[in-house]
Amino acid sequence: MYQMPKFAVILSGCGVFDGSEIHEAVCTLLAIDKAGATSQCFAPNSWQAKTVDHFTGETTALAGDADNRNVLAESARIARGAVKPLSEFKAQDFDAVIFPGGFGAATNWSNFAQKGPNCDIHEEVRRAIEESHQQGLVIGAMCIAPVVIAKVLGKHKVKVTIGTDKDVAAGIVKMGAIHEPKNSTEVCVDEENRVVTTPCYMLDKSIKDISRSTENLIEEILELLGT
Amino acid sequence: MYQMPKFAVILSGCGVFDGSEIHEAVCTLLAIDKAGATSQCFAPNSWQAKTVDHFTGETTALAGDADNRNVLAESARIARGAVKPLSEFKAQDFDAVIFPGGFGAATNWSNFAQKGPNCDIHEEVRRAIEESHQQGLVIGAMCIAPVVIAKVLGKHKVKVTIGTDKDVAAGIVKMGAIHEPKNSTEVCVDEENRVVTTPCYMLDKSIKDISRSTENLIEEILELLGT
Repeated sequence: MYQMPKFAVILSGCGVFDGSEIHEAVCTLLAIDKAGATSQCFAPNSWQAKTVDHFTGETTALAGDADNRNVLAESARIARGAVKPLSEFKAQDFDAVIFPGGFGAATNWSNFAQKGPNCDIHEEVRRAIEESHQQGLVIGAMCIAPVVIAKVLGKHKVKVTIGTDKDVAAGIVKMGAIHEPKNSTEVCVDEENRVVTTPCYMLDKSIKDISRSTENLIEEILELLGT
Repeated sequence: MYQMPKFAVILSGCGVFDGSEIHEAVCTLLAIDKAGATSQCFAPNSWQAKTVDHFTGETTALAGDADNRNVLAESARIARGAVKPLSEFKAQDFDAVIFPGGFGAATNWSNFAQKGPNCDIHEEVRRAIEESHQQGLVIGAMCIAPVVIAKVLGKHKVKVTIGTDKDVAAGIVKMGAIHEPKNSTEVCVDEENRVVTTPCYMLDKSIKDISRSTENLIEEILELLGT
């Protein structure tokens, strides 16, 4: 019997400035559901690098502070509680894995915000990407999240987009990856590595563009999966 | 020159268990944008009644605790920073005002969770609803949020739906309002009071149903506005 693809969605918290970008994450879950596929959210059970007041823009807590927040607990807000620790992720249970954007990609999944192309990657995030790549899952990433894919899969000359930002694109090239500039709602497809990426809020101004970007991303993934 | 309607979207935090239900809020912003209309988010600048760990389901802070959260700052996560204090809301600037669901409706906008039909309503939320009603704006509410509309506009015999939950429906009737049972994605329309409501996660199981519910809600609002 034909089965619809299973997606894992990896989150980095809840909010554009210190976690997952909420519109990108929600539009991803919506696009997967509309395509008739299923999704399971995961997030690292670790502390955020920082917590940001999204009204004032001020950093209110750093790693080690008592009022700093946990990535898994915050990600659970987007997932309505239905999130699993990333340590439990098994690539063989899924057909595709998606990394929505938000600053958490550059602070919680990695320290790209601080160290650029010399960044370190969260061990569980690295494992999830490497195992997914080895086992032939399609990997999707949006907004700033492709820098994490570039760091882990640069040795395979992975091709990604983060839109048109020249500094971030240069960082991606330094990590051994290839950067392909793309416009709003366009998708960059690396067929060989089975990696698809789209700029979302790196370029888009409006939530309906985010919706279209994520739908385009899911469509390309379904095509690579042959469904 | 013809102008598209202006929507205010009122938030109660960021997360189904202690604030605004994120999928409902995001799908509302998306449906408004897809309709070519504009939106501005607002939230009370006050403390949450409680903060809930969305992974464990445990309450981690109560009003007065140092690590409790602020409704405006948390709402700003959904709005990507673009939220205004509800005290600045002026009904004459808008054509419609929408109240997404989430437990924050019953804990931060009111204490319905504690006191049921005898609940008190946050003064700024009451003012926003009363002024919007007086000035002929269309008022939309989803999920559990219609209980707040019922409490404020019960004296006008407002008609709302929260789906099919008998206890909540009985509470709505006790507040002087009329409850109309509705199924998933259906919209209850009170033409006289210009109030439209839809069950969303009071009934729906899937985010694509939430998307359809909110689109149906926006469509009914545009119809009442004659656009």
